[in-house]
Amino acid sequence: MSASIGFVGLGTMGLPMASNLARAGFAVKGFDLSASATEALVEAGGTSAASAAEAARDAGFVITMLPTAKHIEAALFNAGGIAETIAQDAIFINMSTILPEETDRIASALGERNIAMIDAPVGRSAIEAARGALLILASGAPEAMKRAQSVFDVMGNQTIDCGALGNGSRVKVINNFMGVSLNALTAEALTLAEASGLDIRLALEVMRGTIAGIGHMRVTYPNKVLKGDLIAGFPVDLAHKDLGLALQLAAQVNVPIYMGSAAAQTYSIVRASGRGRQDYTAVYPVLRELAGLPEEIPYDASGDVEYNPFASDK
Amino acid sequence: MSASIGFVGLGTMGLPMASNLARAGFAVKGFDLSASATEALVEAGGTSAASAAEAARDAGFVITMLPTAKHIEAALFNAGGIAETIAQDAIFINMSTILPEETDRIASALGERNIAMIDAPVGRSAIEAARGALLILASGAPEAMKRAQSVFDVMGNQTIDCGALGNGSRVKVINNFMGVSLNALTAEALTLAEASGLDIRLALEVMRGTIAGIGHMRVTYPNKVLKGDLIAGFPVDLAHKDLGLALQLAAQVNVPIYMGSAAAQTYSIVRASGRGRQDYTAVYPVLRELAGLPEEIPYDASGDVEYNPFASDK
Amino acid sequence: MSASIGFVGLGTMGLPMASNLARAGFAVKGFDLSASATEALVEAGGTSAASAAEAARDAGFVITMLPTAKHIEAALFNAGGIAETIAQDAIFINMSTILPEETDRIASALGERNIAMIDAPVGRSAIEAARGALLILASGAPEAMKRAQSVFDVMGNQTIDCGALGNGSRVKVINNFMGVSLNALTAEALTLAEASGLDIRLALEVMRGTIAGIGHMRVTYPNKVLKGDLIAGFPVDLAHKDLGLALQLAAQVNVPIYMGSAAAQTYSIVRASGRGRQDYTAVYPVLRELAGLPEEIPYDASGDVEYNPFASDK
Amino acid sequence: MSASIGFVGLGTMGLPMASNLARAGFAVKGFDLSASATEALVEAGGTSAASAAEAARDAGFVITMLPTAKHIEAALFNAGGIAETIAQDAIFINMSTILPEETDRIASALGERNIAMIDAPVGRSAIEAARGALLILASGAPEAMKRAQSVFDVMGNQTIDCGALGNGSRVKVINNFMGVSLNALTAEALTLAEASGLDIRLALEVMRGTIAGIGHMRVTYPNKVLKGDLIAGFPVDLAHKDLGLALQLAAQVNVPIYMGSAAAQTYSIVRASGRGRQDYTAVYPVLRELAGLPEEIPYDASGDVEYNPFASDK
Repeated sequence: MSASIGFVGLGTMGLPMASNLARAGFAVKGFDLSASATEALVEAGGTSAASAAEAARDAGFVITMLPTAKHIEAALFNAGGIAETIAQDAIFINMSTILPEETDRIASALGERNIAMIDAPVGRSAIEAARGALLILASGAPEAMKRAQSVFDVMGNQTIDCGALGNGSRVKVINNFMGVSLNALTAEALTLAEASGLDIRLALEVMRGTIAGIGHMRVTYPNKVLKGDLIAGFPVDLAHKDLGLALQLAAQVNVPIYMGSAAAQTYSIVRASGRGRQDYTAVYPVLRELAGLPEEIPYDASGDVEYNPFASDK
Repeated sequence: MSASIGFVGLGTMGLPMASNLARAGFAVKGFDLSASATEALVEAGGTSAASAAEAARDAGFVITMLPTAKHIEAALFNAGGIAETIAQDAIFINMSTILPEETDRIASALGERNIAMIDAPVGRSAIEAARGALLILASGAPEAMKRAQSVFDVMGNQTIDCGALGNGSRVKVINNFMGVSLNALTAEALTLAEASGLDIRLALEVMRGTIAGIGHMRVTYPNKVLKGDLIAGFPVDLAHKDLGLALQLAAQVNVPIYMGSAAAQTYSIVRASGRGRQDYTAVYPVLRELAGLPEEIPYDASGDVEYNPFASDK
Repeated sequence: MSASIGFVGLGTMGLPMASNLARAGFAVKGFDLSASATEALVEAGGTSAASAAEAARDAGFVITMLPTAKHIEAALFNAGGIAETIAQDAIFINMSTILPEETDRIASALGERNIAMIDAPVGRSAIEAARGALLILASGAPEAMKRAQSVFDVMGNQTIDCGALGNGSRVKVINNFMGVSLNALTAEALTLAEASGLDIRLALEVMRGTIAGIGHMRVTYPNKVLKGDLIAGFPVDLAHKDLGLALQLAAQVNVPIYMGSAAAQTYSIVRASGRGRQDYTAVYPVLRELAGLPEEIPYDASGDVEYNPFASDK
Repeated sequence: MSASIGFVGLGTMGLPMASNLARAGFAVKGFDLSASATEALVEAGGTSAASAAEAARDAGFVITMLPTAKHIEAALFNAGGIAETIAQDAIFINMSTILPEETDRIASALGERNIAMIDAPVGRSAIEAARGALLILASGAPEAMKRAQSVFDVMGNQTIDCGALGNGSRVKVINNFMGVSLNALTAEALTLAEASGLDIRLALEVMRGTIAGIGHMRVTYPNKVLKGDLIAGFPVDLAHKDLGLALQLAAQVNVPIYMGSAAAQTYSIVRASGRGRQDYTAVYPVLRELAGLPEEIPYDASGDVEYNPFASDK
């Protein structure tokens, strides 16, 4: 197997990723419609290919980092595409974020041609791409994953094995759903703080010291609902009341809090289901029920270590 | 001034708070409509009062921990209320969460009677109340705040001085808005993960290592928008695209993601305003603009220390 | 009983209402904090009162049309208020829109003083107030309602008897909830039409000829779900798919459709509950279930006449 | 040109449409994967085709009524597809609802083969399909539209010429967006009514007599904002207040009103933009602005006739 790499798509993320590979000693042949992008790769020590097919020829790994599934399918299967030249023992690695069903469709088309695929979208941003500090959410056959690890180790500082092919895309979509939505929610909270007459720095400092800034994933969820404990640390009724106060305050100062107002409605559902005195993490089983999922949460908490960020020596 | 404390409202939060004060040596006289609650306080070393007025008599501090502003106003000004007996040099401390305007109204009524007030709602939950590990969001005149510190030190392990009277309530509402809404958003993400076929633990582990789980308040906001830097680490256009993928995925698996779908609309506004290529934290100035706030963000980033949770030794 | 009327609150709505009463021959004594408002009433043939108490003295009916419940309670019970002078056989009529629980509270306070009350908020706008063409949503004891009818007939052209005292406020809040929300939804649809390249007039003309413009209350609901018929005229699955298309279109042209995107999530819940092939009016029983209402819809359709706006002679 | 028709897709809508054409004397050759569907067409007087290509052979019109654009493209361009046999002077008519961009893509592919296309999605439901009373939203070249009119006249009782090819799809998506979302909003209002203790029939009767049930498209929009008149009939501030009351009521009775709560946030934006005293139809120009549309609404109201459903003889 050759240690050379074909890299298709040298944009905001792709260029620093490919450049890092070239600097680390891989023979990187890059293809992009933008001449300045391929030139930048050449400066970093790579070479320029005239087509996706040429980039893929004789490569041990062929990586795509492109905007949408349509671009990837075109780069693979159109005339001058990767499928024309990729070697039978090469591994195709898509690192773009696309829908799980699109990943499945591409994997199926490649499977018919006996080409191995890894689905490896990345977390974090262009800053981490430049630093080689991406989070890589890889999924695929274990043997292929093992071979690709040295490539991932250059582009990222953390690779998570997400299991069967397609799970990388699933995790990526969920992860970005959360991060991107949380950004908008954060903007709602800070705008409401300012419009209410608060100093932004004060609001930030307080929230950094509570669940508001720390989040539920390391604290309330593992300590409460995921352990099956819904005895109220903070009851649904109170959460519902507090959102009501926030909605009234926001209405007074004309701050649109679309996400917060949606959250308030969800808590109304939780109360209507008779869970008003349970812990407010009961919102999770209720939402699962709305989505038609089976009652029992498929999570084994037995190995979890308790984490309490508010511990005190007193 | 007496070091005795009148405590009105011995519920889920009030009882452990008052009990901790009694155990720490304060003379605590408690009043609650529930006899079992006052009995529990007596067991912890306090005494039982027959009315709010009696609890307040001769006390140096009179604390209320009650469900709503109406309860507080009744406890203060109705027949048998605190206002009948509270000493001129005592400090009234409301620790319940109420609307800022309600705090202002109560403060104004007390001001007419020359009674000093501190507005000090608490963060965290009943667990921390029992441990004396509450977060206390205090606001009021500096001299009163100084006197009350020894009382706060028993109930909490962190007191934040929020400035002028009323700001405690403001911070509290904002903080709970964020924490309670974030809970519902977290439930959306985990439900979407499971319905998409992912292992919950895997989804949690990945998100704990990215902004999705770490939040924006310590990372993206201080490093980007609050410094006035909107050069895209992660561009709005991509955030908008990724939410679109999540909405399609959620529709396929019938998971209701009301908050995420609202966030997607907000990013549409950000794009329509011509900011598609800016960093996705540009959602914050856009939301400020929608709320009619002045263009410049009143935040001085000059003293901020950069924090990068994804740093790498490579 | 005197046929004179005390009228408190001469604003956008109150002034034309009181003026119409004066022109119709009632002796109207008006009170408002604005001198220009009372002067305008005098020009219409009324007289000016120096206080709410004075307006109410010797009146057979005392009407309030004020911004909030606090204003009404102050006008009634503060010094110089209506309660000081209102006759035992007079009827107090509140025509302002307030919360049902606030109506109940005021009714209870008046009941203790043996003063009869009618709750009669109005529908439509200032244009109809000037024309005497308001919709009056009256509730109260039948005998009082009967006496007040001649007064209502001057201000409105339709009075609906909403039953027991307090129901007028309930109907009013629901009615305005629907009309005001529908306005925002209409704006979403027309903005999406224009941004998609459509002529606004064309979009309006098409929608006026379909359920989109005609609404569900006279067509789909009585013909389907309220009759217990959920055989799909238009199935949930298709409604869900069509909203998905609209969400994608809106994202492409950057039109924020917050309400439509929330609706899409609700249809996901309907599908997850196993009702995908039912008529899309199945969204109603699902929402009732989320609110914790009993399964059977308390509506007897037996007397309903079928209405089909799309009938054809063919 | 032959008057025979090839019909591909005999589902809930397609079967009654094709059957009506057969009964009206057209020679209809139908194709569907379901044998029972083609048999039903044969009973109505049509014939069964073994493939889409066979259905299209020698037909003057080839109609598709299929679930998604992918199905249509497969029916056209896969092996055994319509494109293999369709005559040069035939007209291809897609009556399925798909995205405008998908219509454009199909039209472009057919254009390369010199095949004329009409985009003609339908409004209303299976009931109207059976009655030949569909609303047909046709767009395409005038000459093709003229030829197809006799076909449309059998399937529907109203054909609207939506202009250039692709506009039919645009209108359809907008129209269904509105009708389907309005269904969910109607369910919110009726659920809130019932949970508040109101009789459903009373709530319906009242709303049918106000804008809540009549809608804005024939009344407020042409009479106010579309004429450039934003003098308050019903001011934004009051609309915002009334939604606030509804949100509080809904929270008390635990009814989730996601759409209404989103609407409330939109009115906050309208107020923050300084339009609080304008007519509540000002929500429309504000939403247009959020979507980045130019300030002036491209609508000429000069020919509009005033419509007032609340007119009175008094």
